[in-house]
Amino acid sequence: MYSAPVEEIAFTLNHVAGLSAALEEGCFGDLSGDLVAAILEEAGRFASSEIASLGEKGDREGAKLEDGEVTTPKGWPDLYRRWREGGWNGLTAPEAYGGQNLPHMLNVAALEMWNSASMAFALAPTLTMGAIEALSTHGSDELKAVFLEKMVSGEWTGTMNLTEPHAGSDLGVLKTRAEPRDDGTYRIFGQKIFITWGEHDAADNIIHLVLARLADAPAGTRGISLFLVPKFLVNEDGSLGERNDVLCHSIEHKLGIHGSPTCTMIFGDGRFGEEWGAVGYLVGEENKGLACMFTMMNNARLAVGIQGVAIAEAATQKAIAFAKERTQGKAPGWSGDGKNGGQNSGMNPIIEHPDVAQMLLTMKALTQGARAICYACAHATDMSHHHEGEEAKHWAERAALLTPIAKSFSTDIGVDVASLGIQVHGGMGFIEETGAARYLRDARIAPIYEGTNGIQAIDLVTRKLPLSGGDQVKGFLAELKQVADEVSARNDPDFGETGDRLRAAIAALEAATAWLLVAQADGRTTDALSGATPYQRLFGLVLTGVYLARGGLVAADNGEGSGRFSLCRFMAENLLAETSALKDRVMAGSASLAAARSLLD
Amino acid sequence: MYSAPVEEIAFTLNHVAGLSAALEEGCFGDLSGDLVAAILEEAGRFASSEIASLGEKGDREGAKLEDGEVTTPKGWPDLYRRWREGGWNGLTAPEAYGGQNLPHMLNVAALEMWNSASMAFALAPTLTMGAIEALSTHGSDELKAVFLEKMVSGEWTGTMNLTEPHAGSDLGVLKTRAEPRDDGTYRIFGQKIFITWGEHDAADNIIHLVLARLADAPAGTRGISLFLVPKFLVNEDGSLGERNDVLCHSIEHKLGIHGSPTCTMIFGDGRFGEEWGAVGYLVGEENKGLACMFTMMNNARLAVGIQGVAIAEAATQKAIAFAKERTQGKAPGWSGDGKNGGQNSGMNPIIEHPDVAQMLLTMKALTQGARAICYACAHATDMSHHHEGEEAKHWAERAALLTPIAKSFSTDIGVDVASLGIQVHGGMGFIEETGAARYLRDARIAPIYEGTNGIQAIDLVTRKLPLSGGDQVKGFLAELKQVADEVSARNDPDFGETGDRLRAAIAALEAATAWLLVAQADGRTTDALSGATPYQRLFGLVLTGVYLARGGLVAADNGEGSGRFSLCRFMAENLLAETSALKDRVMAGSASLAAARSLLD
Repeated sequence: MYSAPVEEIAFTLNHVAGLSAALEEGCFGDLSGDLVAAILEEAGRFASSEIASLGEKGDREGAKLEDGEVTTPKGWPDLYRRWREGGWNGLTAPEAYGGQNLPHMLNVAALEMWNSASMAFALAPTLTMGAIEALSTHGSDELKAVFLEKMVSGEWTGTMNLTEPHAGSDLGVLKTRAEPRDDGTYRIFGQKIFITWGEHDAADNIIHLVLARLADAPAGTRGISLFLVPKFLVNEDGSLGERNDVLCHSIEHKLGIHGSPTCTMIFGDGRFGEEWGAVGYLVGEENKGLACMFTMMNNARLAVGIQGVAIAEAATQKAIAFAKERTQGKAPGWSGDGKNGGQNSGMNPIIEHPDVAQMLLTMKALTQGARAICYACAHATDMSHHHEGEEAKHWAERAALLTPIAKSFSTDIGVDVASLGIQVHGGMGFIEETGAARYLRDARIAPIYEGTNGIQAIDLVTRKLPLSGGDQVKGFLAELKQVADEVSARNDPDFGETGDRLRAAIAALEAATAWLLVAQADGRTTDALSGATPYQRLFGLVLTGVYLARGGLVAADNGEGSGRFSLCRFMAENLLAETSALKDRVMAGSASLAAARSLLD
Repeated sequence: MYSAPVEEIAFTLNHVAGLSAALEEGCFGDLSGDLVAAILEEAGRFASSEIASLGEKGDREGAKLEDGEVTTPKGWPDLYRRWREGGWNGLTAPEAYGGQNLPHMLNVAALEMWNSASMAFALAPTLTMGAIEALSTHGSDELKAVFLEKMVSGEWTGTMNLTEPHAGSDLGVLKTRAEPRDDGTYRIFGQKIFITWGEHDAADNIIHLVLARLADAPAGTRGISLFLVPKFLVNEDGSLGERNDVLCHSIEHKLGIHGSPTCTMIFGDGRFGEEWGAVGYLVGEENKGLACMFTMMNNARLAVGIQGVAIAEAATQKAIAFAKERTQGKAPGWSGDGKNGGQNSGMNPIIEHPDVAQMLLTMKALTQGARAICYACAHATDMSHHHEGEEAKHWAERAALLTPIAKSFSTDIGVDVASLGIQVHGGMGFIEETGAARYLRDARIAPIYEGTNGIQAIDLVTRKLPLSGGDQVKGFLAELKQVADEVSARNDPDFGETGDRLRAAIAALEAATAWLLVAQADGRTTDALSGATPYQRLFGLVLTGVYLARGGLVAADNGEGSGRFSLCRFMAENLLAETSALKDRVMAGSASLAAARSLLD
């Protein structure tokens, strides 16, 4: 069973992602390191001892739909109530609406723990947090007054209604329509699919944020507006009123996240209320809906990235525990501790076999690397909020640059690590009761939703690399090099070849970056896009190496020896050589792709 | 829905794996190319139009257990009857027992198609074929006379009972015991787990091959004997007699292959018959059971390898079909064919997006590469049977060398390709009804069973590389180099950098091979084993490149232009650079593994 790695999380937040320094600078008012530690500790306790076991049971039971009503797994509504009563839903929300206005870093760390315990369960608050952000940034004071406090407390949950059957990555073609009414409200008509927690039994009301199109709206993404459509209308006294004309038509039978109802929502088929159409309230301006969604997109993408980290962490813990218990075969060079010398004569715990140890260390390194990337991304967002002018812009750009990497790299390694976790379990890994398979099933959605990882790569290459004319990414690379130089300068034999490996990897990233910037400047878009996905992974691997090094250096400085650094060394000497192949693919892959393209006809 | 790629399969068999040449040399008697083509055509038809749709339905329904009786999915018993009546079960079996004594190559190609259509269904004959092989090689004439004909016809199916809860990879510690009786039979007592098709309703009798230990047997693997334990005893007239004392106690709830019952079998709990114990007949000699199993292990491992190919093929087909239909976003440099210019203005089929095309070509290249490796492995087995003396030894060694690579590389890419297939489908890929998720669920067992891929890597490095003092692998590498040299010699601009890439990759494999041979000669077992898994993948990638090149060269020689070669070029310029990183990991990874090992404590 999952046990929240509070110490590792705190170390990464503080010493790798920059929380300690930010606290010392007073970026977060009077927030102290002790309070951070206490919050993490309590979140870890709740995740490990309250969510994890119900999460596992909930996966087996799944969400159910009957007569338009969705039932979540047994115990989940009560679990959700206890969770929100702990104040966890409003960690980063505005104080004016009952939130705690704490750093995003802290919320991302907490999200990791909720998701490790149960990704299906954690999706409910994840969506609510996104809705809170969109509403608090773009909603009118009136809307905020009616809805925000209950959403921040978690009494009401939120959803995002974007996707339609023919409109996924390409939202410009969505067809859900909105008709204005004289009273300033709108009526919404249409069908949305893949709506996470679109209907459920764990909250009194559900606040849908819905993208729709006005009759006279321009074509494409410039004609999309955002509407708030509550499940129950709200009376003037704040009590719940009539049921709105929005219905869960069906829920999906999915590979994973079984406890999370994924709903097809029908707006305006006339089942409720006197007039046809779901009552909606405009959020922000007409035809500016996509901009409103973009506001929250960075955080939403990071929230999905942290799901990858969370699953990877849980899968790694489970695999390590199994590999310590399970004995099989004789490991080379095994002196033995006598523990298994009796009954299982000659057999060692499989963790002693080099191949198994290698899988486990790979899982550990990738998990910690992805965690650091996600936390660093949250740190950049926090810094952008707590600074002004050029510095705020710098940090906002840094967050923007890191977001697609945090989302894609973390979710890709989430799948890889979960798959390795099954492999470590051998035949037991394929049996559902073991629990290792669930991690792969759950993890597999994360590279897809909230913008597929291919879309992230396009975003990274076409929108993020050119930030500040390329200076943002170049400045970042220079920072990474400093860490690598620092490793080399230590001249510590325990560091092995880490310094050289890091510098070579960063050089590969630099070359690929320069090549992509030139390709785009030259208008060679297809060339640039052909290399986008390998580039994204290249960036993630380099960051993994550098962040592991940073943590290792801090630990060494703190007198902890080179133990922590050894994970960086393992990563550098085993996983970092791939960066050269990725650079090569970025810079030389497109010609053969074009040549082979006709094989797909 | 899956459509058997008969043409591609025939091309790979004939021109890449060597079937054409073998036919011309008369290795297979009067077997003609036309007959081969006809057999493949009919197998393809049966797989595509008879198995595929029932396979999909069967996945949803799953196998069920009630009162010791297992029910397979609706329609499967009849499907199985029609399949065996087509003579497919005995393709390679001895003619004396009703088999057709055809080449293994042909059977492996047919197995690919059965598995693409339904891996869960194809497992039944896969296990039967293994049992036939063990029995026909090691069984007494008496046993063969009673059992073999019905097994070859498929009227009776076979199982392999190896694994026990504490004995998976390490069979030496199994506890199932056998007691001799005065009549020359034995009584078997014990529990076996993970028994594929251990109990079902599709055949009149089930012939279990069971590893067990005699009371006075030496410890470890040298004290294991093999027994034949029929579900129903067979009367002297060949009719079915008493029910034997073997029972399916439970079936597993698994991630995939839901239609295939994975049984826990109890031998000798006294429920049937007058005397306690399951009646068993010794196969081969006492205490030589493991050697009997080893006989069939090469073919069984290859049969699992082909499952990886099969799933990869089916997943690739599905993803390509989806990517052609699904329109989303505007692809760069897309001139358009007007087809989607109307309603979906500005949207292109997603196959036009470079990132999607890259995923699909990667899937295609890995699938075809793994297919060629598996077919080449079967070819080597066939050659070893049809030659004598040194030549037979050479081919047997070649088959032995290729087997762990065929098993591991194919099943690893099976998982990777199935996962990419989900990714291509976007959100739809996560919905079970789409069918893409099933491929990942089914594929995930193949790297585990029949010896985990980690075990394969140990086998490759410690037993296969040293064959003929290393000359077998060195000779093979020299053959591979000839293909690369041939590519370079053509000097065809359409081949891009393929020649150089292939030569670099082969050089990397050569260096890693030499290093591993030296490490073992020096007794540095841990170093060698640390590099075993990356080495195995390195070998698989090189073979993929070389076999794709061989096919491309033949096609070019046949006047088909460089179209087929373009897949090799794509592979060489996009996927082959990884070989350098893998070589590096083989030769430099173990020190850091040792250093980081304590992080797992």
